[in-house]
Amino acid sequence: MILVGQYDSPYVRRIAISLHLFGMPFDRNTLSAFSDAEAMRRINPLGRIPSLVLDDGEVLIDSAAIADHLDELVGPARALLPASGAERRRALQVTALASGTLDKAGAIVYERALRPAEKIHEPWLERLRTQCASGLAALEATTGAGWYLGDRVRTPDLMAACLVWYLTARVPELLGEGACPNLRGLSARCGELAAFRATEPSADELMPGAPI
Amino acid sequence: MILVGQYDSPYVRRIAISLHLFGMPFDRNTLSAFSDAEAMRRINPLGRIPSLVLDDGEVLIDSAAIADHLDELVGPARALLPASGAERRRALQVTALASGTLDKAGAIVYERALRPAEKIHEPWLERLRTQCASGLAALEATTGAGWYLGDRVRTPDLMAACLVWYLTARVPELLGEGACPNLRGLSARCGELAAFRATEPSADELMPGAPI
Repeated sequence: MILVGQYDSPYVRRIAISLHLFGMPFDRNTLSAFSDAEAMRRINPLGRIPSLVLDDGEVLIDSAAIADHLDELVGPARALLPASGAERRRALQVTALASGTLDKAGAIVYERALRPAEKIHEPWLERLRTQCASGLAALEATTGAGWYLGDRVRTPDLMAACLVWYLTARVPELLGEGACPNLRGLSARCGELAAFRATEPSADELMPGAPI
Repeated sequence: MILVGQYDSPYVRRIAISLHLFGMPFDRNTLSAFSDAEAMRRINPLGRIPSLVLDDGEVLIDSAAIADHLDELVGPARALLPASGAERRRALQVTALASGTLDKAGAIVYERALRPAEKIHEPWLERLRTQCASGLAALEATTGAGWYLGDRVRTPDLMAACLVWYLTARVPELLGEGACPNLRGLSARCGELAAFRATEPSADELMPGAPI
């Protein structure tokens, strides 16, 4: 398998972490969705990351759809999302809060990085910041001292940790000192896992001027 | 159940259509994500639509997560997404193409509607238009003369039809005359179904100046 995209994207990293957790070997293609846009669209017509190229050449797009396929490959006992019932509903809701907040944080980063200063629209940024703060507060209230479900890291933990890491790197003012202690704790627990350590973005990928 | 959001959102409409297809009665709360932003965040902290308030008061957010719950309620024989295997993978891929194109089209609408003219950044719009055109072409190539899977409308049909309808209403230049005949045909077939007719946005919701 080939994972397409850079680890500065929390959605790419989510899939990379899943592959590591499952012990599935993979190669990487670190094309950028911005500086390599045309080549990227030949893999995923939408020009988005991540994509996962399967061994038979089939290309899967969309991180949630890729995660769904990987869960099916490993079976319900190892899957990162519960198969059904209240546990699945809860996992999907926490995941939606985390990925929704990520979407809004990503829009802040885009607004700042992809247009000249005079085109930045402060009321739009303010709306996004309010949405992020509200999403983060709701997520913090769902987070405890352990994992979200049982005794191992699963999709909600993984997405919440990717959110904390992305905000810390890209929109640190959203996570002021002392804010969201539960989420920070969860992120620290995740950070100790080999699958997270193996997928840390390189310094190049996190340079302030790097393409996002 | 109460469905929160207006039918001018393709994501709200997707859930409304699903509820109609399943014969599940529901009430509506037509708060706007823009003009009623604060009230909306009390329902969904992210201030996004749709939300679905269940009969016991539990609130589900995120259209894919809501659809997942509804599929579980009706069981695999009536579910709109296949439960597993190549059918599910294909359904999720077509759905990802349609919803990814919708996201980019929505970003075009936002760029035009939510900022003063002098803050509109043409290279950003151009990037979005290219992504939409490429997504649409890929989706058109997956579409045939019938439904995507078997003999009934399911999630990929529904999402593709919602995309065609949204583009026609909001970004018509992306669907020039004669473009995407397969997608237009699919959309026309969907438009004949009672579940689609029952969820047509009101004229107010589609006024050019209406909050998006």
